[in-house]
Amino acid sequence: MKIKNSGQPSAKLKAKAPTLKEKKAKTAVIVKPIKDNKKTLKVRFLGGVGEIGKNMTALEFGKDIIIIDAGLTFPGDNMPGVDLVIPDVTYLAQNKARIRGIVITHGHEDHIGSLPYIMKELNAPIFGTKLTLTLIENKLKESKLNDVSLNCIKPGSVIKLGCFSVEFINVNHSIAGAVGLSITTPVGVVFHSGDFKIDFTPVNGEMMDLSRISEIGKKGVLLLMADSTNIEIGGTTMSESVVKDTLDHVFADNLKKRIIIATFASNVHRLQQILDLAVKYKRKVAFSGRSMINIAEAAAKIGELKIPDGLIIDVEKTKSFKDEQILIVSTGTQGEPMSALTRMASGEFNKVVIGKNDTVVISASVIPGNEKMIYGVINNLYRLGAEVIYESLEPIHVSGHACRDELKVLHSLVKPKFFIPVHGEYRHLKKHAMLAESVGTKDSNIIIAEIGDTVELTDKTMKMGEKFPAGSRFVDGVGIDGADSFVLRDRIHLSEDGLLVVVVGIEELSARLTSIEIIGKGLVMTDAMINEAKASVTNTLTHMDLRAVRNETELNGIIRRSIKNYVFKVTKKNPMILPVVMVV
Amino acid sequence: MKIKNSGQPSAKLKAKAPTLKEKKAKTAVIVKPIKDNKKTLKVRFLGGVGEIGKNMTALEFGKDIIIIDAGLTFPGDNMPGVDLVIPDVTYLAQNKARIRGIVITHGHEDHIGSLPYIMKELNAPIFGTKLTLTLIENKLKESKLNDVSLNCIKPGSVIKLGCFSVEFINVNHSIAGAVGLSITTPVGVVFHSGDFKIDFTPVNGEMMDLSRISEIGKKGVLLLMADSTNIEIGGTTMSESVVKDTLDHVFADNLKKRIIIATFASNVHRLQQILDLAVKYKRKVAFSGRSMINIAEAAAKIGELKIPDGLIIDVEKTKSFKDEQILIVSTGTQGEPMSALTRMASGEFNKVVIGKNDTVVISASVIPGNEKMIYGVINNLYRLGAEVIYESLEPIHVSGHACRDELKVLHSLVKPKFFIPVHGEYRHLKKHAMLAESVGTKDSNIIIAEIGDTVELTDKTMKMGEKFPAGSRFVDGVGIDGADSFVLRDRIHLSEDGLLVVVVGIEELSARLTSIEIIGKGLVMTDAMINEAKASVTNTLTHMDLRAVRNETELNGIIRRSIKNYVFKVTKKNPMILPVVMVV
Repeated sequence: MKIKNSGQPSAKLKAKAPTLKEKKAKTAVIVKPIKDNKKTLKVRFLGGVGEIGKNMTALEFGKDIIIIDAGLTFPGDNMPGVDLVIPDVTYLAQNKARIRGIVITHGHEDHIGSLPYIMKELNAPIFGTKLTLTLIENKLKESKLNDVSLNCIKPGSVIKLGCFSVEFINVNHSIAGAVGLSITTPVGVVFHSGDFKIDFTPVNGEMMDLSRISEIGKKGVLLLMADSTNIEIGGTTMSESVVKDTLDHVFADNLKKRIIIATFASNVHRLQQILDLAVKYKRKVAFSGRSMINIAEAAAKIGELKIPDGLIIDVEKTKSFKDEQILIVSTGTQGEPMSALTRMASGEFNKVVIGKNDTVVISASVIPGNEKMIYGVINNLYRLGAEVIYESLEPIHVSGHACRDELKVLHSLVKPKFFIPVHGEYRHLKKHAMLAESVGTKDSNIIIAEIGDTVELTDKTMKMGEKFPAGSRFVDGVGIDGADSFVLRDRIHLSEDGLLVVVVGIEELSARLTSIEIIGKGLVMTDAMINEAKASVTNTLTHMDLRAVRNETELNGIIRRSIKNYVFKVTKKNPMILPVVMVV
Repeated sequence: MKIKNSGQPSAKLKAKAPTLKEKKAKTAVIVKPIKDNKKTLKVRFLGGVGEIGKNMTALEFGKDIIIIDAGLTFPGDNMPGVDLVIPDVTYLAQNKARIRGIVITHGHEDHIGSLPYIMKELNAPIFGTKLTLTLIENKLKESKLNDVSLNCIKPGSVIKLGCFSVEFINVNHSIAGAVGLSITTPVGVVFHSGDFKIDFTPVNGEMMDLSRISEIGKKGVLLLMADSTNIEIGGTTMSESVVKDTLDHVFADNLKKRIIIATFASNVHRLQQILDLAVKYKRKVAFSGRSMINIAEAAAKIGELKIPDGLIIDVEKTKSFKDEQILIVSTGTQGEPMSALTRMASGEFNKVVIGKNDTVVISASVIPGNEKMIYGVINNLYRLGAEVIYESLEPIHVSGHACRDELKVLHSLVKPKFFIPVHGEYRHLKKHAMLAESVGTKDSNIIIAEIGDTVELTDKTMKMGEKFPAGSRFVDGVGIDGADSFVLRDRIHLSEDGLLVVVVGIEELSARLTSIEIIGKGLVMTDAMINEAKASVTNTLTHMDLRAVRNETELNGIIRRSIKNYVFKVTKKNPMILPVVMVV
């Protein structure tokens, strides 16, 4: 797998980007965008609407389909044993010959995470900026997908994919190389914000390209799709630079102590600030956690992260330095059970033993659902005597998403005819729709779409179209399973109510019960209750003619019914009753 | 069961409270508090420290024990199928003859919820204010505990329990009748805040009795134990009155719409404000949800809630009124699956069908861990067209717990020699300890205790004492089970990795395998994989001498090992393997 540079520069940045010609053959059919009023543009939502995570949208016109993002999400409490949740791409797989490309806005898991799974079913070139593609390349390699076409695009460049032309526009976010997309289609321009914030003082890289967005808006945008994550928060998101000031104070206040900072590995700008502070305060840096080491190495290789020579040491070597000479940068901001920070907090990480001379900074916000885990880690760090600095106390983290006033700026610049809010639960989408209306988009020109919805556009109209097969698929161990799976329902049943295995031996010749065994798991039942249940089954099976039972299913039903009520009466539970009939 | 009035009034309020004499015989041995320097006061922590919920503390001196609160907590995600978690009262049960009384600070579940379970093991009179006892009485009746002695105490009263004398002091909280406790012991005064806030403009009832607390502080307090819930929030908690203003605006802005307000049934003051607004805006009120109806009735009966005649109608009758004439007050602020609000939101509640002319107000905060459920309800309400007003948007709820500046007021008035923070996770306790130090308590005079710790005090010293048996017990269906239970570990194992039942028939005479059956549940395995696993077991068992196997445990181990690696290889899961051997 090789990352190719491609992208046709927009008027403004022509000098910098390579031409598209180099890879013409590989990016499938290229058609000039043409006006075509006989067909409609179909926007299909595969994920990221009515939910947080696994962002994925497809644009379809005539024979051409392009995909925007291909994310994953992490399972909820109601999905025990599930590792990951990815979009159901059945529709795309059925139409895979029509897919001209997969355009990725940035390298977060909720935008790239499903690629290792769906690229086994789809065959299309992937387009993104440098860090994005580097992260994707690592992922695909791990899944032994080595022949995917990866095409590196610079912000400001334009690529043509079938009847679509896609311009990449620099935005600010909590990862380097994030872009929005201005997509020229035969019915008009579709603007997709990606995940974004407006950072007037970004740490590295450039500010969101508001002037280009303004130009695009002036020429006329048919449809805006924009990030709704922070719609419930008024005002504007703090700049990444704020974090540097807070962290600088932490370093200044803890001159004699060891400092441990946990942060997201992919937030390369945050990481750069942390490394700069280590240099300023003359500390060596040890990375801890596999993803931290991998991503830092990858980002350094492509020049997104600048690491002075001699700064980094192996975490094993930290013991031979004084506490005040050491900064450990770790994974585990969400209290993930196997992460470096969680293991440090529970005293199970030999390489870093936490004590009174440690200050631990958690430079991240808590993703909803992870509260108990991360607060568990914080409690344990305090128990070990460490000082802990986390978000509810200090501005030690800033969001990567636009708040209400920034969204108003975007809407005012883009001035779309139609609007569809994306990236949020229904409540976020609803409030983003209300905000759009408040800044000038007509209520009738806004649609709140959910997964499986198709929205159809002409140059003058937007309406809800057909439903298409879509939803969630679970990655579970090595298998991939549908969201309605019996497997999951069984697991939930087992976890709530436990299990009773009822094994009966029946003699073939006489069709009589010869033995019975009942084994309970995950259920509070005494031996006396088990014996009572056995007696109940025995009583039922010895007072009937088993020869009259037509098949095993019927017999299983009889066994279940013979003890169900008794078991509920004594346990107030309905365990899974699993009869096993052995004919002997 | 009858609620008796008791309590010996303090100097200030002598006129109002009845004397203790009436129930002298029932409150066990009454001894005058005397100085006794040979023994230490033991403060034993059974719950509510190092965790949120199931608050329970015992004070022990010589032969006397009193208990403060007896709460429960709700199970975490790591406790599938568990209904409730209560304190392990093994130590108290072993010493039950020494328990002089159970003193309850207020009627929330995390202070009274374990009474129906522990009162089967303990036998002691319960003391509390009117609403507290009414709620306890209802609970005990449901559990058919009808002979518990319940003693109603007015704030300002003093009761004597063994060598302890306990004064009830009015505090503000999100339930009526909340008190703090000033407990005179032979070594000095122990002040326990209970759950509290300082509300200068409470809606009903009186302001927290700061002048009495100040008097007690002046005379000298040996030990303060105080609520740490809101230690991470600076400033002061908003007054309950603020909610009335916001709710009034909601009524004024929605004159033509039906209004539905979800709130905690036990927040009687909130409920009173809501009923007052219904009267003001000429709406009928329908209660929805069993606990809302029960608690409103109970509170009305004892005069804590004033309900004008003709205000309340049955929820079934709401359909015969116009939307603008109706206010529905419902349970379900936490998205509880079976609550009225959750069923309305999912369209499963025939009595109230949600539509565009509904405004739903959720007047409560989200208890950590419930985010996904309540946001799911909010999303569904929006999908049905309703307007939804909830905490992240409006001051529609205020906390019942003191923030940092209020805690400073308490510390300054009580001026304790020693301090133990209570009611919080370790991080809260740690920060409360830091706050105490900042307002004048010496670091060496503060102990952070956890469940199972005993803190020992004389009139001059405080030190950590012995550990005693304590922890959590699970209420699970009708059974009660220890926290380390196999049952729970099995359920978690089943829910994460699923189950394989391996049934083998072995002929007794020949000791040879005659049949094999493998059944998988909660596991993604194809028939081919199951057959491969069967072959693996068969292969192992036919190539060994089964007569040499000593017992079933050994045989089960052999069966497990014969397929474990194969199953992990193909599923990346370690399911519970449950061998069942049938000798035929």
